[in-house]
Amino acid sequence: MYSKETAIQLRDEIINYLNTGLLPFWISRTVDNQYGGFLTHFDQFGNDSGEDEKSLIAQSRSVFTYSSAHRAGYGGGKLAEMAKHGVDFLIDKMWDHEYGGFYWMVNRKGEVTIDEKIIYGHSFAIYSLSEYTLATGDPRGKEYAEKVFDLLQKYAVDTYYGGYWEMFLRNWDLKGSGAAGGDRKTLDAHMHLMEAFTTLYECTGQQVHRRKLLEIIELLTKKIMHPEYGTGIPQFWADWTVAPQIKFDIVWGWDRFSEDGQKASAEDNTSYGHNSEFAWLLMHALDILGLPYDTHREQIIKSYSHSVDYGVDWEHGGVYVEGSHAGDVYDREKEFWQQAEMLIGMLDAFRYLKDEKYWKAYVNVHRFVFDKMINHALGEWWPLMTRQGEPIWKHMSHSWKINYHDVRSMVQSVVRLNKILDSDL
Amino acid sequence: MYSKETAIQLRDEIINYLNTGLLPFWISRTVDNQYGGFLTHFDQFGNDSGEDEKSLIAQSRSVFTYSSAHRAGYGGGKLAEMAKHGVDFLIDKMWDHEYGGFYWMVNRKGEVTIDEKIIYGHSFAIYSLSEYTLATGDPRGKEYAEKVFDLLQKYAVDTYYGGYWEMFLRNWDLKGSGAAGGDRKTLDAHMHLMEAFTTLYECTGQQVHRRKLLEIIELLTKKIMHPEYGTGIPQFWADWTVAPQIKFDIVWGWDRFSEDGQKASAEDNTSYGHNSEFAWLLMHALDILGLPYDTHREQIIKSYSHSVDYGVDWEHGGVYVEGSHAGDVYDREKEFWQQAEMLIGMLDAFRYLKDEKYWKAYVNVHRFVFDKMINHALGEWWPLMTRQGEPIWKHMSHSWKINYHDVRSMVQSVVRLNKILDSDL
Repeated sequence: MYSKETAIQLRDEIINYLNTGLLPFWISRTVDNQYGGFLTHFDQFGNDSGEDEKSLIAQSRSVFTYSSAHRAGYGGGKLAEMAKHGVDFLIDKMWDHEYGGFYWMVNRKGEVTIDEKIIYGHSFAIYSLSEYTLATGDPRGKEYAEKVFDLLQKYAVDTYYGGYWEMFLRNWDLKGSGAAGGDRKTLDAHMHLMEAFTTLYECTGQQVHRRKLLEIIELLTKKIMHPEYGTGIPQFWADWTVAPQIKFDIVWGWDRFSEDGQKASAEDNTSYGHNSEFAWLLMHALDILGLPYDTHREQIIKSYSHSVDYGVDWEHGGVYVEGSHAGDVYDREKEFWQQAEMLIGMLDAFRYLKDEKYWKAYVNVHRFVFDKMINHALGEWWPLMTRQGEPIWKHMSHSWKINYHDVRSMVQSVVRLNKILDSDL
Repeated sequence: MYSKETAIQLRDEIINYLNTGLLPFWISRTVDNQYGGFLTHFDQFGNDSGEDEKSLIAQSRSVFTYSSAHRAGYGGGKLAEMAKHGVDFLIDKMWDHEYGGFYWMVNRKGEVTIDEKIIYGHSFAIYSLSEYTLATGDPRGKEYAEKVFDLLQKYAVDTYYGGYWEMFLRNWDLKGSGAAGGDRKTLDAHMHLMEAFTTLYECTGQQVHRRKLLEIIELLTKKIMHPEYGTGIPQFWADWTVAPQIKFDIVWGWDRFSEDGQKASAEDNTSYGHNSEFAWLLMHALDILGLPYDTHREQIIKSYSHSVDYGVDWEHGGVYVEGSHAGDVYDREKEFWQQAEMLIGMLDAFRYLKDEKYWKAYVNVHRFVFDKMINHALGEWWPLMTRQGEPIWKHMSHSWKINYHDVRSMVQSVVRLNKILDSDL
């Protein structure tokens, strides 16, 4: 049962952890004073593990993390300085002055190692640079976010079937088919473009950013989400028919595939954490657009209820990795980012739908995170655990696991717990 | 019956007329040496009729006319100078340095009178500026054509349903619904974007221009053309359902509407000249793309055969204005531009499909043009005639009737007659 006392206690647990555990982990070690930007590879002991790479998503997500935590009132100014340090590196070292856009990967010195233009990474560039301007007032963030938006509209949009192509060469020529990814459209990129366009519109107030945000919401809710279950379908062909889920040459996570690069259930696979993240990002987009949640009530209910009805481990705590649209769980391990997104999602679900099952799920996942997923000795989260909560992977950070999910989850859970406490729940 | 002798005779009749009648009409009077750009309003005597306006379409179409005629070998260099003179005015006086794009209307001095951004006009900006660089090598044409292309991709594309919105305020905010036109998509704009992207791609060879050209061909052939008759449908809602044909606040022709701004047959109306123009522009796009006509054989046959089976006046000569998709003729008058487009279309139809009916239609319309539509005393065409061939309107030129249709028709008919003469027909 929900009680104000529990909500206050959980909120204060988060605030204390943010200020004494999670943010200090990053403040104390991520700034690269030698080459600029951020170090983003740390081993299980929190030591720099030495990988000579700086990825667009780790650098831009870091900028988002420090900007948004600063905007929410944390860090006493230090996080804004870190965000500026990150933006300097993004613009000075990762921006392609010839063709426009950000390179996908550079080394520590800032020398380009993968010069391709990947939309997933550019969604985070827009998101982080817009958030940076909102947090600090530095107009460079807005300027480059708009440049990226314009490039996407020019090169990535499919003006026949709608939506965005996602994988490009340096000169923005579309890549080939199959693992090159040039013939597919994904939930992942489109969901993060919704997230990015939301913050871009919050930053600029421009009609064109509002319009393209509304259009991508239509794409997500009418073409990308499962027509019956309202759950996310990972991959599509150009015409929005479902494509078997394959591994791309360019990756941004450690999704597990069989040796032929397909998922075991390549055409019936959905992620609980993604569905929860999608629904709260949609609610946030509606807030920024000034539209009522009820405009998408059915979609929001389907996404949240699938996550909570099938994804929550009531025995060991936390949320599973993925399963079928109808509900069968395929992968019962516990990965960091799904926990993070489930927390915000369950609070938004409870806040909007007033159903106690979402509160119960929030408390479940909150306890799993604080009791098992956080490596309290250091302050960061384990990346992947067994169902029972034993670490499988042990690095604290990598190009694909920076602080965007967990810091955002903590900051936004506090925001939402306060909203709930201020409501008549 | 087709014969080489007739083809040679008709070709030479055109070449002689171009060199001694049509081009001299323009060379002798259109250049505005006082304010730059072109004078485009001439009365039935060929005198400047004094309207104090320079429209984006008349200025840009003039640039196309002089560039393309120069590229085809006419004018001895004079036409290239005229094209440069027009490009100077477009860039210096009609380009919006704050928001980008070309204003819709300025006065003779170049002061802005309508600052809106209209996609139809921008399609001609792309078309003419690309042709200008192809004809002269001056890189400014390509530079501004690409700028306009980029603005269209950013502001005009509907990333959900595909295609382009068409009516914008100066700052590229989409205009409202109804007569403002912000809730509709039209055959007219999309067909001219195909025409524009074809020449842009010819000029740049860039993959992104090729891709968007292929996409707009898909839009035209799968959503805009009538699914059964293959004929053009003038207006659509966002989702490509047919919208009743209404008159917009911003116009670029003298289509006749009833007093409530609707066509008498607002939902069953197609233009023979437009259908013929569409089919030859599609064949030209396929040529530039390096694709065989057979990729769209059925569409091409439908468009041409509807024009020839229902649109040709075998009694008085020439092509009617418009009628139903099933074939009923609604308007039997003879307007200048439909004759012009029918000529090129019928030659391409004959060249590709080898059916004598197209040759017969070509000769019919050719004779109507040379015997009735051309005002031989001056060299230009009458704008609108009775079915029998008596002038109704008598101006020689206006913002909506410049020389793009007739000069192009003459130049391209010579090109196609030569192709036919070189073939084994």
